[in-house]
Amino acid sequence: MAYQDKGLGVPILRRLPMYLSLLKEYRSQGQELVSSSQLAGDLNLESIQVRKDLAATGIVGKPKVGFPVDSLIESIENFLGWDNASDAFVVGAGNLGSALLGYKGFSKHGLNILAAFDNDISKVGKKISGKEVLPFSKLPDLVRRMKVHLAVLTVPPEVAQRTADTLVLAGIRAFWNFTSVQLIVPENIIVENVDLASSLAVLSRKLSLALERSE
Amino acid sequence: MAYQDKGLGVPILRRLPMYLSLLKEYRSQGQELVSSSQLAGDLNLESIQVRKDLAATGIVGKPKVGFPVDSLIESIENFLGWDNASDAFVVGAGNLGSALLGYKGFSKHGLNILAAFDNDISKVGKKISGKEVLPFSKLPDLVRRMKVHLAVLTVPPEVAQRTADTLVLAGIRAFWNFTSVQLIVPENIIVENVDLASSLAVLSRKLSLALERSE
Repeated sequence: MAYQDKGLGVPILRRLPMYLSLLKEYRSQGQELVSSSQLAGDLNLESIQVRKDLAATGIVGKPKVGFPVDSLIESIENFLGWDNASDAFVVGAGNLGSALLGYKGFSKHGLNILAAFDNDISKVGKKISGKEVLPFSKLPDLVRRMKVHLAVLTVPPEVAQRTADTLVLAGIRAFWNFTSVQLIVPENIIVENVDLASSLAVLSRKLSLALERSE
Repeated sequence: MAYQDKGLGVPILRRLPMYLSLLKEYRSQGQELVSSSQLAGDLNLESIQVRKDLAATGIVGKPKVGFPVDSLIESIENFLGWDNASDAFVVGAGNLGSALLGYKGFSKHGLNILAAFDNDISKVGKKISGKEVLPFSKLPDLVRRMKVHLAVLTVPPEVAQRTADTLVLAGIRAFWNFTSVQLIVPENIIVENVDLASSLAVLSRKLSLALERSE
């Protein structure tokens, strides 16, 4: 799960979704105003950190009053580009691809999954959680015609690089890469890696060592 | 998606699942022997890196012949503790928790999800992908009785810390933390973070900046 953290203030980008989730919770409970210290307290962060992060989105709070919850949500969503959802294709409709197709949380994080692609003819033509599975051969043409820039990559590792190459040629500009492979892509292409198998490997190895020590 | 990378050679732990996945693919195609250079070639890695990683699991290859695919799979699984699956509870049966319950890939990565827990009475008593959703109130007792050490944490951020505190008291030793919250836990407790919302935030912000630049 390495990141290509070039420029852009990545740590704040990682915290903003956390504020957003909490603010929506406040809103659903009828809360209209929030202070940076309440956010900080609920999230184990320093107040000064929260104030700086929120200021970066361009919002200005009122001293001793705080921020209107609604405006703050809008300001963060705007900053993240989540008010303007990105269309995406899921590439690889195996177990993980299918689970991601079934995750209803993406839409509120600005990701609009249009369809999935797979080479397996037993999957093609079916729907997974309401999204159609199309043959991989149709992908390049649809990327171009539908102007999709984002691919959620969930293919097996041995075809990951080859698939990415094809997608870049077709016009994909960004990969959310769930394979374990470090993709080699042109400099202007964005890759964000989420490697669940490796994460689980680290966790289970640490846990088994810890349990051995305590036996 | 920060890691608590203390000791333990974490980069190799992150690569091993990638070898494993590829080796299983070779096996399914009937391949019996593999060289480190074949693995390296298929995964965009240096041969010397692959040789060192595999040596760390304790296996010894034959010069000019390579490794038997079966023994190599066994050796890696053994090293990762995946030959001995960890029982786990999913805590929080919302969208993400439900998607993870539906992901069939965990079992082959050594994770055996026994059940899910939630406070929402509209979910309790139902099954999600064949796993029962139990009331959160039963969790501490079941963690103790079933000697479960691992929790997959998918609760909303505002209850994440409180939930983790309860779980630590009950005997949970390791968290696979899918919430955006940096959990504060005692030193002997293991936390591995996977923060999909933040990962997506970084990706969509970078993509929207890149698209603006190219307009």
